[in-house]
Amino acid sequence: RGQRALAIGAITRAAPSAAAAVAGAELVVLAAPVGATPTLCAAIAPALDPRALVTDLGSTKRQVLEWARALLPDAGQFVGGHPMVGRERSGIDASDVLLYTGAVWCLTPDATTAPDTLTRVRGLVRALGAVPLALDATRHDSLVAAVSHLPLMAATALMATVASDPAWPDAQRLAAGGLRDTTRVASGDPIMARDICLTNAAAIVGGLDGYISRLARLRDAIAAYDGDAIERVFSGARDARDQWLETRDTPPQNESH
Amino acid sequence: RGQRALAIGAITRAAPSAAAAVAGAELVVLAAPVGATPTLCAAIAPALDPRALVTDLGSTKRQVLEWARALLPDAGQFVGGHPMVGRERSGIDASDVLLYTGAVWCLTPDATTAPDTLTRVRGLVRALGAVPLALDATRHDSLVAAVSHLPLMAATALMATVASDPAWPDAQRLAAGGLRDTTRVASGDPIMARDICLTNAAAIVGGLDGYISRLARLRDAIAAYDGDAIERVFSGARDARDQWLETRDTPPQNESH
Repeated sequence: RGQRALAIGAITRAAPSAAAAVAGAELVVLAAPVGATPTLCAAIAPALDPRALVTDLGSTKRQVLEWARALLPDAGQFVGGHPMVGRERSGIDASDVLLYTGAVWCLTPDATTAPDTLTRVRGLVRALGAVPLALDATRHDSLVAAVSHLPLMAATALMATVASDPAWPDAQRLAAGGLRDTTRVASGDPIMARDICLTNAAAIVGGLDGYISRLARLRDAIAAYDGDAIERVFSGARDARDQWLETRDTPPQNESH
Repeated sequence: RGQRALAIGAITRAAPSAAAAVAGAELVVLAAPVGATPTLCAAIAPALDPRALVTDLGSTKRQVLEWARALLPDAGQFVGGHPMVGRERSGIDASDVLLYTGAVWCLTPDATTAPDTLTRVRGLVRALGAVPLALDATRHDSLVAAVSHLPLMAATALMATVASDPAWPDAQRLAAGGLRDTTRVASGDPIMARDICLTNAAAIVGGLDGYISRLARLRDAIAAYDGDAIERVFSGARDARDQWLETRDTPPQNESH
């Protein structure tokens, strides 16, 4: 993998271990499924320059923050990060130099974060063309449970339901863009998804409960042939989605603080 | 609307009524939400040439077939059609000359369909660059319930769930491509969606029951922090989706009969 990354110019140096990679580094970015964070922190801690800045790209932040605090030499040198970009492909060949352009990039400082750490990571984010947004780690996890993790659960369970239908071998000839797009995120890395579930379980379970109850209400309206109730569900969802996308079309506001 | 369609070249002639539109026509294509089918059939019946061919583009076929049989002068002149193309936009400005290219186009003849009717509609479908696939109307409705209608229900309920969260005003800043793609089909026409539900209720309710039970199992695995079970759900869905898309990359087979 290191050879491939060198060959396409994604990296300039490959290291035989995480500790070797961080030796002498001023800035360390952990980019791995969230569950690998404690192992990575423990591996780099002995080799880490105490003045080095450490951040990460993990999908959940509260648990990552706890691990970093416990395992890094200085909790003040760490600030959690989460660029809000979605790709279902992973691996070095999915790299994209424009991936972060215009994206909101969450940063989750807390009382232990050195002010200089936050300032420098903000600079990194801006240098990549992204928009830094500082918020509390627990708040971050709650917000992404709704807008990122719940869609992942919905898409994955949908793909599993459709593919386990005995009629799927025939049905897939009729499947078109609707199924493809609705399930896109289900093609992501299963380890990354598992780690998201394990480090944000309560918020995801809450989101799933709300989703299941809404599906059940829609199911009951259809079973009752209640055309007005059915139409209200669809027009409400369309209006909410269209309003959201109109808001998105205006450039994201930078954080004011 | 007629003026706009004329202006962009989507039509060559606008008619003041459905009856006026079909007078003298050799081929009539009903393109409206499924629920409008009985009104349309009743409106065109008196003006329809008995040798004219009639087909439709509706998302469900069993109910449409019953309406056409009951309301058209000659049931043999009708064959139901359903091009498997998904667009969330509707209206004349969403027209696209390449929309049907390469798409599977279901045709649902039955014992009353005149052989010549099926042959001529097949010719129309091929002329548009699409691939005709003949199947039973009830079978069609059962297959599309899984691969087309269930994704529509899942996306719509997801958008409704996320947008009704009190945190949505904050959360939408973090929402990215995952939510956008997973909910794309929720931006479609609510009347079309309602009519799909009302004319394919049993199959959709069955699909929703299967989906809800699968979501509940995933929810329970997450609540129990069962990492192995969670990972199996995600890897199974990813594998099923990747296999399906690989199959799709090979050109669709034409029907053999």
